[in-house]
Amino acid sequence: MWFTSDNAGPAAPEIVAAVAAANAGYAAPYGADAAMARVTARLREVFEAPEAAVYLVGTGTAANALALACLCPPWATVYCHREAHVAEDECGAPEFYTGGAKLTLVDGPDARMDPEALEAAIAGTPQGDVHNVQRGAVSITNVTERGAVLSVTEVRRLCEIAKRHGLPVHLDGARFANAVAALGSTPAELTWRAGVDAVSFGGTKNGCLGVEAVVLFDPARAWELELRRKRGGHLVSKHRYLSAQMEAYLEGDLWLRLARAANARAARLAAGLRALPGVRLQHPADGNIVFAGWPRAGHRRAQSAGARYYLWPMSQSLEGPADAEVTARLVCNWATTEPDVDRLLAAIAAEEVAERA
Amino acid sequence: MWFTSDNAGPAAPEIVAAVAAANAGYAAPYGADAAMARVTARLREVFEAPEAAVYLVGTGTAANALALACLCPPWATVYCHREAHVAEDECGAPEFYTGGAKLTLVDGPDARMDPEALEAAIAGTPQGDVHNVQRGAVSITNVTERGAVLSVTEVRRLCEIAKRHGLPVHLDGARFANAVAALGSTPAELTWRAGVDAVSFGGTKNGCLGVEAVVLFDPARAWELELRRKRGGHLVSKHRYLSAQMEAYLEGDLWLRLARAANARAARLAAGLRALPGVRLQHPADGNIVFAGWPRAGHRRAQSAGARYYLWPMSQSLEGPADAEVTARLVCNWATTEPDVDRLLAAIAAEEVAERA
Amino acid sequence: MWFTSDNAGPAAPEIVAAVAAANAGYAAPYGADAAMARVTARLREVFEAPEAAVYLVGTGTAANALALACLCPPWATVYCHREAHVAEDECGAPEFYTGGAKLTLVDGPDARMDPEALEAAIAGTPQGDVHNVQRGAVSITNVTERGAVLSVTEVRRLCEIAKRHGLPVHLDGARFANAVAALGSTPAELTWRAGVDAVSFGGTKNGCLGVEAVVLFDPARAWELELRRKRGGHLVSKHRYLSAQMEAYLEGDLWLRLARAANARAARLAAGLRALPGVRLQHPADGNIVFAGWPRAGHRRAQSAGARYYLWPMSQSLEGPADAEVTARLVCNWATTEPDVDRLLAAIAAEEVAERA
Amino acid sequence: MWFTSDNAGPAAPEIVAAVAAANAGYAAPYGADAAMARVTARLREVFEAPEAAVYLVGTGTAANALALACLCPPWATVYCHREAHVAEDECGAPEFYTGGAKLTLVDGPDARMDPEALEAAIAGTPQGDVHNVQRGAVSITNVTERGAVLSVTEVRRLCEIAKRHGLPVHLDGARFANAVAALGSTPAELTWRAGVDAVSFGGTKNGCLGVEAVVLFDPARAWELELRRKRGGHLVSKHRYLSAQMEAYLEGDLWLRLARAANARAARLAAGLRALPGVRLQHPADGNIVFAGWPRAGHRRAQSAGARYYLWPMSQSLEGPADAEVTARLVCNWATTEPDVDRLLAAIAAEEVAERA
Repeated sequence: MWFTSDNAGPAAPEIVAAVAAANAGYAAPYGADAAMARVTARLREVFEAPEAAVYLVGTGTAANALALACLCPPWATVYCHREAHVAEDECGAPEFYTGGAKLTLVDGPDARMDPEALEAAIAGTPQGDVHNVQRGAVSITNVTERGAVLSVTEVRRLCEIAKRHGLPVHLDGARFANAVAALGSTPAELTWRAGVDAVSFGGTKNGCLGVEAVVLFDPARAWELELRRKRGGHLVSKHRYLSAQMEAYLEGDLWLRLARAANARAARLAAGLRALPGVRLQHPADGNIVFAGWPRAGHRRAQSAGARYYLWPMSQSLEGPADAEVTARLVCNWATTEPDVDRLLAAIAAEEVAERA
Repeated sequence: MWFTSDNAGPAAPEIVAAVAAANAGYAAPYGADAAMARVTARLREVFEAPEAAVYLVGTGTAANALALACLCPPWATVYCHREAHVAEDECGAPEFYTGGAKLTLVDGPDARMDPEALEAAIAGTPQGDVHNVQRGAVSITNVTERGAVLSVTEVRRLCEIAKRHGLPVHLDGARFANAVAALGSTPAELTWRAGVDAVSFGGTKNGCLGVEAVVLFDPARAWELELRRKRGGHLVSKHRYLSAQMEAYLEGDLWLRLARAANARAARLAAGLRALPGVRLQHPADGNIVFAGWPRAGHRRAQSAGARYYLWPMSQSLEGPADAEVTARLVCNWATTEPDVDRLLAAIAAEEVAERA
Repeated sequence: MWFTSDNAGPAAPEIVAAVAAANAGYAAPYGADAAMARVTARLREVFEAPEAAVYLVGTGTAANALALACLCPPWATVYCHREAHVAEDECGAPEFYTGGAKLTLVDGPDARMDPEALEAAIAGTPQGDVHNVQRGAVSITNVTERGAVLSVTEVRRLCEIAKRHGLPVHLDGARFANAVAALGSTPAELTWRAGVDAVSFGGTKNGCLGVEAVVLFDPARAWELELRRKRGGHLVSKHRYLSAQMEAYLEGDLWLRLARAANARAARLAAGLRALPGVRLQHPADGNIVFAGWPRAGHRRAQSAGARYYLWPMSQSLEGPADAEVTARLVCNWATTEPDVDRLLAAIAAEEVAERA
Repeated sequence: MWFTSDNAGPAAPEIVAAVAAANAGYAAPYGADAAMARVTARLREVFEAPEAAVYLVGTGTAANALALACLCPPWATVYCHREAHVAEDECGAPEFYTGGAKLTLVDGPDARMDPEALEAAIAGTPQGDVHNVQRGAVSITNVTERGAVLSVTEVRRLCEIAKRHGLPVHLDGARFANAVAALGSTPAELTWRAGVDAVSFGGTKNGCLGVEAVVLFDPARAWELELRRKRGGHLVSKHRYLSAQMEAYLEGDLWLRLARAANARAARLAAGLRALPGVRLQHPADGNIVFAGWPRAGHRRAQSAGARYYLWPMSQSLEGPADAEVTARLVCNWATTEPDVDRLLAAIAAEEVAERA
């Protein structure tokens, strides 16, 4: 019963098999492998973007930081949600890769940037005044860090604000598959048609071993991205193993099947939690992440039963009054099973029964 | 018949099997997996360094640049050979990760730094004068980029120079296994006992999918390295797949067996070339890399026969007088077979025969 | 009637005379001039800090960024007020000089960091977690950007929080003279005795041509600061002209006399404004800066009368309803005269009269 | 008798007077002062470049590093002479400001880049290969660090090589006045007409207190330069004092008169040295710098007589055999007098006489 993160789960067997199959014989290194050409072609189809430049890297932080460095000069700022991964979980990788750009933190419920708050933040950066950093780029996240999914309309609204100010838009899509699976919208609708310029298209959290694609809809900065990738140590020599993962991931829409599985488990979990007395869902749980609060005693019971997840914020503790609400982040992945979910729910529910008894 | 680089070859089956086996169930991410603890313990044994800090990353460029950034401040310089990988093949990654340090290029045959030249280069950097960059670190490579192996004595000599000036030493060991296999010296003798402070211990070129270890013999900068790794986007979330590779690589000295195989093929190739009239070996061929020159016609024949390798320098061409010497870099890997070697030799020899006929 | 900033005013005649006098004959460059030794000795006396390292640079931004770069590593964050000069007015110089550190913005009235908010901000940066940037340094400003002066008690409170978390403290003292003049506390009490580690001691805004001192109470990072200064292009070759300014500035406490003059004019201005109907002071006006709001018509009258100052925030306009409150920042400098102040007050008052008439 | 550097001499009285005169009343800060508009207009005239963008900073290192950062991306290299100021005397400022670009060191006599060596260095940087840094910019120096002046023909030859490879050219003109004075060529002929894109136009070494102009002939990167200047802490608030220096420096061609005086003293010195037995001139002495060698005893005599200059290289010593040649760098400035020169010559000559007696 691991609900700590989607990166704790295994890779899908199709992915592992593809890596093993890719191991036959020799292959040109550094992205010149034949499989990479197929990956590029396939991702262009997926995004309906025949000109897009596509690059693979091993981590989501690398994908985000490299993309942002191509969009935002050192003397500018990236507008993102206060809880965005680029702001909170990358140890300053965007600052490092951009050469010292700022992040301007924007508020909004469910880790979505509130459009008015974004507008105000941009307006609050005087333009053409050399004393302050300039407006650089907007970075959005879908699925958000709080588990909410941005609809096409929401993406478009944020992009429109960015575009009105001449700013490029980056999408952190570490869980983009879960967003697409949840919405039924197309990748194109959720990205370039809405105004997104660059996407970090995640594979790792959704069943790969470790691969992310950077997709630049405008290939003008493709060469710059290649140089930044190499210079950052992210150009993999035995690249065929990245290509193989991504090819298998896209093959037959495996990426969507895996995401649907994860989303379905999260939906089952959210529904089960909602049905329990004393449990309060905190965010939409649109994708594969559920935030919920319930009495501390229930957490103790769940964790005794073997459930692993993070209290969120992590500063909370299992020590303290048994009936005080403590909140948790619960993340499902493609391999989460219905029995996993049901056992977790039972452990929490048991507590309620026990408490009442 | 691929002799382009050891990164064009496949991974060893033991490595692939280990990755597949690592895929069972859940594992803590970001290096907290159980296998990583075993890898650390095992690498400490291999290096006889019970305090060493050990970190895994996906590329050799990352390993080198992260290690150097921990050893050399932004206002200093790294002394390395003019043809070192860190100087010529990393698109400025050391400069990027150090925050703008310089590399001071030192000459010497076979891509070994000449000790006198190193001494002169260090002496040529006035110390305590704020106008020029300061002395930062020394970076050596074993096996060198020209295929030579540094003996314990040679490593010690370079380290002594560094130490006399108070400078830490980094070893780019992308092909360290080949050096150990060639010399029969121990990893400890070739590193910390000789004065090396940090090692990039390569796996990728020697039969892994993609994994390198950074080994810091003085763990004082371990936390800094962890932060730089994360900030550089090189902390892998599904870390178990890196751990599994490295564990299998070290298990039963697979790393040495693979390197011995590659070295043996290179030795066969070098011996065969030496026996051919008109062929001139250019560098020692101590490890798994052979540099040799022979008439252009022989290259045409070899490449027609399917041999793949780089002319070195790459600015040479197959176009031109048939009898002019053209030089090649030929790299063997663990999977290179004796028939591969023999077919290449035959193709070159055939030419000589043809030419004489 | 210039109240735009203290940097619009002239230099004090003593300073100009000292520069002219310093021009006789030859002098060792790059800080090795005899006057610099005297400046160091004198500043150590002023701060009662016989071990302090002292360096001169030409701008306050350079002083702040260099000091912060010595206190905060690239993977950490500087806690400062949301409106601090380092956050709003330096185009990312701290990010540039630190190699990409973050600034964490802390709220509080009058551009003072609220101690609880600082504590919460530090606590909100999980320590020892590689995913987020680490706690780096605290930067305070005295006089604040809103014209408030931090008392010894207030400085000590902020420093205590920093020290409890092991963080060094930087003081942006671009207007430190005005703070000392206002409080009557000693420089030592307001800095190292309260816990400050590094000071940007301003001269430019208070009657110099252009000189700021960086004072490091712990000289351990002095050499690093020297290298960063040179590397940043801030080591001046004809250094005697910086030394001469600073020496004259300290001579006979000229720096305090100039600051007292500026503060006295601001006090007169604040008192005069308070006495006017319809005028509202917004911040304490402890030093030489006054923030006040009054009806737009009064601004039109003042500006027609030749008064120059910034509407604050600058997004406000003189266009619009005559009776709506518009706010201004009014900065006095050592050369501001009582008639200047009185003419400004009269212009605003005239409006009130006119309006009532 | 100071011949250590032109930065040890005083400022010209016209410059000091201009600074004092600029101190009257109030002035807009940060380059918005009226004098700066006149400086821009005048420098455009001087360079016959009506579109040029002009910015002032306080040091030559800042001018060079800011200009190079606008011309060379982080993943590229600047070709410059091995002894260029940007390579040897700026503690890595170009690396810092460019975000980690390399310098590729080119040889050539008299600190002039040999055109063939430049061509070879550029050709030796494979283009379009992501593994190595890219070709970035060429930086030349006139007067060179060895005292040679580049003629229009020489500048044009180097620029042609750069242009053939699509590279922009920067001129370090810390002593540009001395070059113009020596050659009689126009500033335009020596810069943009020959292919130079950006100039660091020095004032400090030639009689100013501390001011350098960056001149960008293509104003496309003007705004970027403004942002980099601010971010680097080089936008001076009381800018009028920089403007005043530069205005006085250009007024009535003071800059050329000062340079002619310095050059004339150096010519007198070089002629005098040439006439002495046992003295060997090492470089052309085209401008205001003389490199010469003579027996150690002569150095002892000269230094006893009060002459101050650097042995060059500085690793030489006055200790050792009296008749061994020791070499010196002797720099004249506008204030160097004929008696200064003659006393130095007499001291050296006296020694020869003494030795022979």
